[in-house]
Amino acid sequence: MAIVLASASPRRRELLEKVGVENLVIIPAKSELPVPQGASPDEAVRLISLGKAREAAEQCPPGDVIIAADTVVSIDGRILGKPQGEGAAADMLRELSGRVHEVYTGVTVISGGEERVECERTAVRFRPLGEDEIAAYVATGEPMDKAGAYGAQGLGCLFVEGIEGDFFNVMGLPMCRLGRILSDMGVKLL
Amino acid sequence: MAIVLASASPRRRELLEKVGVENLVIIPAKSELPVPQGASPDEAVRLISLGKAREAAEQCPPGDVIIAADTVVSIDGRILGKPQGEGAAADMLRELSGRVHEVYTGVTVISGGEERVECERTAVRFRPLGEDEIAAYVATGEPMDKAGAYGAQGLGCLFVEGIEGDFFNVMGLPMCRLGRILSDMGVKLL
Repeated sequence: MAIVLASASPRRRELLEKVGVENLVIIPAKSELPVPQGASPDEAVRLISLGKAREAAEQCPPGDVIIAADTVVSIDGRILGKPQGEGAAADMLRELSGRVHEVYTGVTVISGGEERVECERTAVRFRPLGEDEIAAYVATGEPMDKAGAYGAQGLGCLFVEGIEGDFFNVMGLPMCRLGRILSDMGVKLL
Repeated sequence: MAIVLASASPRRRELLEKVGVENLVIIPAKSELPVPQGASPDEAVRLISLGKAREAAEQCPPGDVIIAADTVVSIDGRILGKPQGEGAAADMLRELSGRVHEVYTGVTVISGGEERVECERTAVRFRPLGEDEIAAYVATGEPMDKAGAYGAQGLGCLFVEGIEGDFFNVMGLPMCRLGRILSDMGVKLL
């Protein structure tokens, strides 16, 4: 039995390795799945994570355990995905500056013919950012591959005054919830 | 000018390196400073971090920037430090199971003859733990060098349902607050 991560995210891989998952098989989705029109953040990340998991499951033996996740940032009822270019990254950071936003991660586990789809929400409070800081941060390149244009586990930690919820959810994988789902499905991490 | 970390904690070192601090000088305190009798968690971590910082500052040129921190876990009005042995670690984990506790980190920065001492508090909610999980976790050795007998950034992430406050404070260094103190004192990280 292999544990398969249906994601190219190095952060998700690192988190699973940190809790002792060895010989992780990585099967990223062939293309970035679009956010479904009109979907709430909760619905969107559930649907996208389920799509990624099913795509990977088709390529695996039935005994494998498939884990997939999708993360978006939401503010003022709008969903922020990954920024398209440096200007868009700076715009997102200006929007998050000095305010609270929400991070949603949908997580799907497929094992033994069963599918489990759940969603975790975390509120994140940014301190007010200066234009010089935004420019310096965008120039580091860190924002470019991340929903909402920041990495809470990188330099972005300097912007996050506090959160309410699971920190690892902000990194892209709600570890406590995932551990519980896996345990329910007979895969013990500890 | 050197940046000096007055702590042997590999987690604090890793966090400072993550925000681009290079050539960090490590000067750990010569002995583990005791929690002052009758002090509140807030007072205790401030005093201990100040003590560590002053001890390191005596060994450094006046132009250096000294960073020190001390972290404790508090529950039911009692302070939990690092566990003395595996039995004590299991007892602490049983006490934290299914409840909310608080993590306090005191942080001191000494630079240019000025001392800044602050404290950050984060609330942490554990899910209920089984005896088998506690035993398996203690057997990994992870709890042994950590206040409250868990590492939120290691396997302990599976126990933490959610937090309220700065996650990095739970790891031992409140990064957003520290960045602000350093910036006030003329040391820009970004």
